[in-house]
Amino acid sequence: MRIDILTLFPDMCRAVFHESIVGRAIAAGKLDVRAVNIRDYTLDKHRRVDDTPYGGGMGMLMQAQPIYDCYRAVAAESAQKPHVIYLSPQGKVLTQTRARELARMDHLVLLCGHYEGVDERVLEEIVDEELSIGDYVLTGGELPALVLTDCVARMIDGVLPNETAYSEESHYASLLEHPQYTKPYEWNGKTVPEVLVSGHHANIETWKRQESLRRTYERRPDLLKTAELDKSDKKFLQSLTKKDEDLD
Amino acid sequence: MRIDILTLFPDMCRAVFHESIVGRAIAAGKLDVRAVNIRDYTLDKHRRVDDTPYGGGMGMLMQAQPIYDCYRAVAAESAQKPHVIYLSPQGKVLTQTRARELARMDHLVLLCGHYEGVDERVLEEIVDEELSIGDYVLTGGELPALVLTDCVARMIDGVLPNETAYSEESHYASLLEHPQYTKPYEWNGKTVPEVLVSGHHANIETWKRQESLRRTYERRPDLLKTAELDKSDKKFLQSLTKKDEDLD
Repeated sequence: MRIDILTLFPDMCRAVFHESIVGRAIAAGKLDVRAVNIRDYTLDKHRRVDDTPYGGGMGMLMQAQPIYDCYRAVAAESAQKPHVIYLSPQGKVLTQTRARELARMDHLVLLCGHYEGVDERVLEEIVDEELSIGDYVLTGGELPALVLTDCVARMIDGVLPNETAYSEESHYASLLEHPQYTKPYEWNGKTVPEVLVSGHHANIETWKRQESLRRTYERRPDLLKTAELDKSDKKFLQSLTKKDEDLD
Repeated sequence: MRIDILTLFPDMCRAVFHESIVGRAIAAGKLDVRAVNIRDYTLDKHRRVDDTPYGGGMGMLMQAQPIYDCYRAVAAESAQKPHVIYLSPQGKVLTQTRARELARMDHLVLLCGHYEGVDERVLEEIVDEELSIGDYVLTGGELPALVLTDCVARMIDGVLPNETAYSEESHYASLLEHPQYTKPYEWNGKTVPEVLVSGHHANIETWKRQESLRRTYERRPDLLKTAELDKSDKKFLQSLTKKDEDLD
């Protein structure tokens, strides 16, 4: 898979690829991620890429021409039209389900906005999809593009060591993770829950499931609506609800 | 304001601060952001910071001791207890409202998890709040910590040039931005909407407001529930709804 990030801050993007699991996947040839400098494509003799908005208003907008020519140069290297995503607060909010679909594509182009935004005409011309990583405001599209790259990259075969891939599944099942413990057995006066050192596998699995349900119930009850729950899950959740009612 | 990011990948974090608006704010002394290497605090002679989970399961967990000692070293430099945030998929989802509250604090410590997670006992000991940047899975907490830093930093006085601060307000009002256009007037056969070059300020403002409403209605109707809408906004939205019904 190839991902091109069109940006005014290519060095920042490269520094992030360089480290972490995504960086190792790139080094191993599982993934080809490039940061392309939009400014290299401006026809302006002062290398400008922005100008004031029509209709007034404050701040500057990125102009259409440098972005369009940058996109065309990148697209020309691909046998088929790449899928172009504009990272912006105006987009649909990214979900794991959408990231999984994007991980199946051959070539993604991620456009990072900066300043107050981008001339709408170039978005109409090249963008297939607008995505937001959440309902908060950032200074540019670079961090969202890096978040999307990380999220997509880790689902590509061979990028993660096998044993790490499983944590994703728990998120798919729409439940939060149960608490986890590692060595030493006693730390700072606190020991690991007894069940986890009991060696009784069925009890351990029940504990993990119930702690996962409890945490989801306490922190993100909205996720329970779409979670796959069996009879004993529902019974356990009812016992939590009942406890809360008793306290009222 | 001071932000300490506790991480196994400090170089990646520093590279991001180095560029962008946050980097300029740091250089100007408006903001003090540090990336602290958790590994520097391990007492293990092989510099290990992780071990296998109790109760079985795949992957590795970050151990309590290095994180705790790293946190204590950072907290010792502050006159008051810093507010500690653990970035994890188990947290509450970050919102602009929460980011604004965090921007008022003097000292934030952001803990980045890696591998399969972190020993629960150290979280109980030091963490005030768990935050998630969205419902998707990433390879570590570094990008979420950088997203949070960017989001919080831009709200600190003097970090953004004044004129840029306004785009945030539109997000506060819970509406998406209207389309924006900059020079040249004609690009690739497309001209700027006539109203924006009319010089008629009232018409321009009406157009901007209606396009903002239209876009929110089309892409994120959920946001309309909390938006502040006046009589004419509601009338315009009714006209959109009616159009859709006529098409059915």
